[in-house]
Amino acid sequence: MTSSFDPSTFRWEGVEEKPYKEGGGWEGVTRFPLAARSGFEVRYFEIAPGGYSSLEKHEHPHVVIALRGRGRALVGREVVDLAPFDLVETPPLAPHRWVNAGDQPFGFLCTVAAERDRPQPLSEEELSALAADPETAPFIRRG
Amino acid sequence: MTSSFDPSTFRWEGVEEKPYKEGGGWEGVTRFPLAARSGFEVRYFEIAPGGYSSLEKHEHPHVVIALRGRGRALVGREVVDLAPFDLVETPPLAPHRWVNAGDQPFGFLCTVAAERDRPQPLSEEELSALAADPETAPFIRRG
Repeated sequence: MTSSFDPSTFRWEGVEEKPYKEGGGWEGVTRFPLAARSGFEVRYFEIAPGGYSSLEKHEHPHVVIALRGRGRALVGREVVDLAPFDLVETPPLAPHRWVNAGDQPFGFLCTVAAERDRPQPLSEEELSALAADPETAPFIRRG
Repeated sequence: MTSSFDPSTFRWEGVEEKPYKEGGGWEGVTRFPLAARSGFEVRYFEIAPGGYSSLEKHEHPHVVIALRGRGRALVGREVVDLAPFDLVETPPLAPHRWVNAGDQPFGFLCTVAAERDRPQPLSEEELSALAADPETAPFIRRG
């Protein structure tokens, strides 16, 4: 029920690294399940320099709290810069992608409901709208 | 949907401080609701030097991740020392109390299910057992 954190490795005792997900469209992402209790799951994700998560949307919200490094996120039509302890929530069906924006690992906590829908790809209309905006366009050129 | 963290104040933009709870049995605790989404709530608690939370138990689990300072927790019959990013889960009906064990604020994230039972006081038997163990006795002499 207790797991010590090792600052020298930025890892939790007894918490195993898991594959981020199957399929493509992402790079350099690892996943660490910290807790899975009644109703919700707390996970730690880490994105290597140059890495990025899959571009997706789903009904269930993410509650993200940055822990280390620098990140940049697409959330809906907005771009958000993330430093440690910054908080971001993804609204239902908002397209989102997390990107490492620095030269150190970018790590964050992500809490989700235990019962949740599967991620979906974006529609052609969503991709076109994001491609037309110079700020969000870089987020759809990856993967 | 986004809240920047200010490291100089250790506070989140737009997140208001709320009372910890009504009644007595605790000291120097503040509560900051960070997110309340479908199925779960993420809160940040901060305990001032010398402070401690209420001694209680309930069916719903807490998932706690320390963020700042030094803490010490009673969890069931065990005492756990907490430094930043250490992880603790409280099992169902395990008596627990969080104590500031340093001279700086002790802060931690605590995630709970949205639907949860109310905290209960400990039974006389539980209090006697904790009082009889020199390690746990200090936790029941407060409040």
